[in-house]
Amino acid sequence: MQVQGDQSSAGATAKPMRLALLGVGMMGGSAAQAWRAAGQVSQVVGFDVDGAALQTALAGGVIDEAAPSAAQAVAAADVVLLAVPVGAMAEVLAHIAPTLPAQVLITDLGSTKASVIAAAREHLSAQQLVHFVPAHPIAGAERSGVAAADAALFAQRWVILTPQPGVDAQAVLRIEQIWRACGARIERMSADEHDQMFAAVSHLPHLLAYALMACIGEQAQGQRALQFAGAGFRDFTRIAASSPPMWRDIALANQAALSAQLARYREILARMQAQLDAGNGVQLHALFEQASQLRGQLAGVGHER
Amino acid sequence: MQVQGDQSSAGATAKPMRLALLGVGMMGGSAAQAWRAAGQVSQVVGFDVDGAALQTALAGGVIDEAAPSAAQAVAAADVVLLAVPVGAMAEVLAHIAPTLPAQVLITDLGSTKASVIAAAREHLSAQQLVHFVPAHPIAGAERSGVAAADAALFAQRWVILTPQPGVDAQAVLRIEQIWRACGARIERMSADEHDQMFAAVSHLPHLLAYALMACIGEQAQGQRALQFAGAGFRDFTRIAASSPPMWRDIALANQAALSAQLARYREILARMQAQLDAGNGVQLHALFEQASQLRGQLAGVGHER
Repeated sequence: MQVQGDQSSAGATAKPMRLALLGVGMMGGSAAQAWRAAGQVSQVVGFDVDGAALQTALAGGVIDEAAPSAAQAVAAADVVLLAVPVGAMAEVLAHIAPTLPAQVLITDLGSTKASVIAAAREHLSAQQLVHFVPAHPIAGAERSGVAAADAALFAQRWVILTPQPGVDAQAVLRIEQIWRACGARIERMSADEHDQMFAAVSHLPHLLAYALMACIGEQAQGQRALQFAGAGFRDFTRIAASSPPMWRDIALANQAALSAQLARYREILARMQAQLDAGNGVQLHALFEQASQLRGQLAGVGHER
Repeated sequence: MQVQGDQSSAGATAKPMRLALLGVGMMGGSAAQAWRAAGQVSQVVGFDVDGAALQTALAGGVIDEAAPSAAQAVAAADVVLLAVPVGAMAEVLAHIAPTLPAQVLITDLGSTKASVIAAAREHLSAQQLVHFVPAHPIAGAERSGVAAADAALFAQRWVILTPQPGVDAQAVLRIEQIWRACGARIERMSADEHDQMFAAVSHLPHLLAYALMACIGEQAQGQRALQFAGAGFRDFTRIAASSPPMWRDIALANQAALSAQLARYREILARMQAQLDAGNGVQLHALFEQASQLRGQLAGVGHER
């Protein structure tokens, strides 16, 4: 029985939680602000290879302290948040593994999960892996940079957790607790299921939007045509403003699942072109109708922005 | 010199303008409301093959009178607005040609222009053609039905006019005047230029959005994946909620230009897949970067919703 008066009710959260934020971009900065605003962390130590971004984060109060290296950032942390592009996860994990405190919680924001888990398996010890909870918050990211960080980014959003067999159940619950406190909804699934689903509903659409802009950019009349593009075009291509290096990394990190989705999509376009060239209005209409009905259902699930 | 006192300053607009609205969907209804709100028409007679839509338009005050046929709707009109799907233009023009008053202004809202002009050439007399001003207002249309009509739909939007050689210059100016009074901006171009540009920035994106929904719908995990789709996916696929018969008609009406754009786009996807499968991050990044920069420019032209 505890005899510490008022503090006893606060339980485990009474201890100040120290967050090591590795990568101070829009997503990492938003997470740090959201976690702090929700009372889940009390102190944030940040590191970024981009020194200017790190100073911006410090000046803006997103982090309380700028560490001179990733290894030093994590040395006294209670929880480590990997908020670097998925292509940089392995390198960062290799850097921090030697200085990670025992029992430290480790999680991430990566848009692909199998690749991050593979990197963790390669660089973390078996004991460290027990406290690693892979996570993917589904939140918009076509803006980038810590100046675009937003503490409210995760309200009503999904956070997908892909915990591995053997993980400490308390570690998973703690990460769930942090995100729920930020207003997010939690779903657990396997990393493979995650990667296949997000290849279809996130990674492929990004490729398609980039491809449309590239297609227009290659045409002599492209610039003039863009002048008259309507709201539908702007919505469709909004994600093509997303960070090119981040999406290159995601595409390569989820190469197999994304390639399969792209091949499947190209088959549908080939079918559509045959129908168009044949003037087959019946089949075109059937495809549009099927698509339109499915999109109509979407209004009833999840959330609109 | 006119001696009619106050009425003289109103000039040509002093006479009550009678609009025949053929097709009382979202676009036609919005145009009738916008034209009336801008003082460009004083009386609206409507016709639609969908009797229920016609009654809704009448009950909602979008039209003042429901005509029993297109031919009767135009009989006493000063201006005829063809607001039917592009696939129905020829049939409607054939119906109204015999009863069109001399000097009546004729215009439309079609998303394709060469096909509508071809239909007009087939069914209108040379004298009637002189007063035909093909128009395409670039305004969102994923909602449909007259209940979604919006008098403010055209404010700050482009209206593309594709007048043909031999058209009466005053007729073109009058249509420009009507749209400008609704807050729209006007651009004139050839029908071929219009159709090629909009194949790229409007018709192709609609096909691509429909194709993505169809692609996901064909997969066993599709429904579950949609549950977790983020804001980017919702933006990207918003136009897939658009009317399937309307877009079937548009695709077929602009078949040649759209087919060329689709083929071009498929070449880019083939290139992208080869880069992805080869793990060629340098080339993927270059394509994403080119696309992202062009999308970034878009923020500076036209308008956001």
